[in-house]
Amino acid sequence: MDKIIKLYGEVTAIKNLLERQFGMALDYELEEDNLDIRLSIYNATEEEISQIEQLFDEQIYNTDDISIQQTVVDFLSENNLTIAIAESCTGGLLSAKITQVSGASEVFYEGVVCYTNSSKQLRLGVKKDTLIKYGAVSKETALEMAKGILEDKVDIGISITGIAGPKGGSLEKPIGLVYIALASDAGEDVFDFVFSGGREEVRQKSVNTALYKAFLHIMKYY
Amino acid sequence: MDKIIKLYGEVTAIKNLLERQFGMALDYELEEDNLDIRLSIYNATEEEISQIEQLFDEQIYNTDDISIQQTVVDFLSENNLTIAIAESCTGGLLSAKITQVSGASEVFYEGVVCYTNSSKQLRLGVKKDTLIKYGAVSKETALEMAKGILEDKVDIGISITGIAGPKGGSLEKPIGLVYIALASDAGEDVFDFVFSGGREEVRQKSVNTALYKAFLHIMKYY
Repeated sequence: MDKIIKLYGEVTAIKNLLERQFGMALDYELEEDNLDIRLSIYNATEEEISQIEQLFDEQIYNTDDISIQQTVVDFLSENNLTIAIAESCTGGLLSAKITQVSGASEVFYEGVVCYTNSSKQLRLGVKKDTLIKYGAVSKETALEMAKGILEDKVDIGISITGIAGPKGGSLEKPIGLVYIALASDAGEDVFDFVFSGGREEVRQKSVNTALYKAFLHIMKYY
Repeated sequence: MDKIIKLYGEVTAIKNLLERQFGMALDYELEEDNLDIRLSIYNATEEEISQIEQLFDEQIYNTDDISIQQTVVDFLSENNLTIAIAESCTGGLLSAKITQVSGASEVFYEGVVCYTNSSKQLRLGVKKDTLIKYGAVSKETALEMAKGILEDKVDIGISITGIAGPKGGSLEKPIGLVYIALASDAGEDVFDFVFSGGREEVRQKSVNTALYKAFLHIMKYY
């Protein structure tokens, strides 16, 4: 049978894992869009597909050909959950990607593109001390942003802050450094990444990673 | 000489105007990206290029091959102006397009994706009465959104509210109806459009139109 699996990761790592497991026995294609992967498998047995699903486990966000944003919106909708987004370096891309989905208005409450320190403070209540001590691109700021966007009417807050480049990098905080945080009644998570590529690539990878992390957060806590 | 001119409009209308003026005498190509047009002219005389510039006049936003978002960011930067954006149906796309530009952080203060009535009220101070009387997609709401996003630190507020579809249309307010408002110390403007196409096309046309209207607003008032 043929099968499409959607997963999060790097295409080379996925290719290596597939080859180690199946050698040349598996007929497949991999397409990557900034860490968002479509794995198309051809003429596979059910056994093989089940092995692949075990192999990639948590990396898999859909076993049908459905986008990550549609998957997240469907998940939220099924669980009667709402989200709000606070984003800095991605500048609105995460909100824009979620609202591509036609049913997004049922689950997406609002987004804030806090592109300045002042906006982070006034719109999201990020503490001035936090910005001074840790900087706008830090775990601490990411967490305060995610908590700041959580309102009474919102179940999950997502935040992104990072350095998309081409300027703004330093030895301590290189271009591509991105923090993603999630906050909900159920718990808080914060993750750091250093993404390769130019400004637009870093932005797109950040967005796809945030969507994937939101997917995991909902899986874990709801 | 060869020349690239960037302008706002519909490709068919532009083609008709060029043919009426020049017949078959002009060698050119037109590319449209959702009302954002690149006109490439080949082997033209200076006289012809000057005629074209007169013909399209205000529709032209750049006489070099520079994107509308880069044009707007450069304009703002040269005039020491800052902007903030309040968007509904475009869901963050306008902020995302402006922040594609590497120098955007100098001129872009913040964005709010007010995807719910509650967000419009709480984040932007849109009046409940306005939402009830005129609706979320109306001139009145668009203007209150643009004024609501104007902060002390912001010179120009831009807002978009509309019906991107595929649901949400009515006889009075069809899918594709979009209001774009601009507010600054210098003045206020509000425009209405009915854009053709599917959800993503309506969103992209709204974003390009808002950028073009911002360009005109800066030209007119600054």
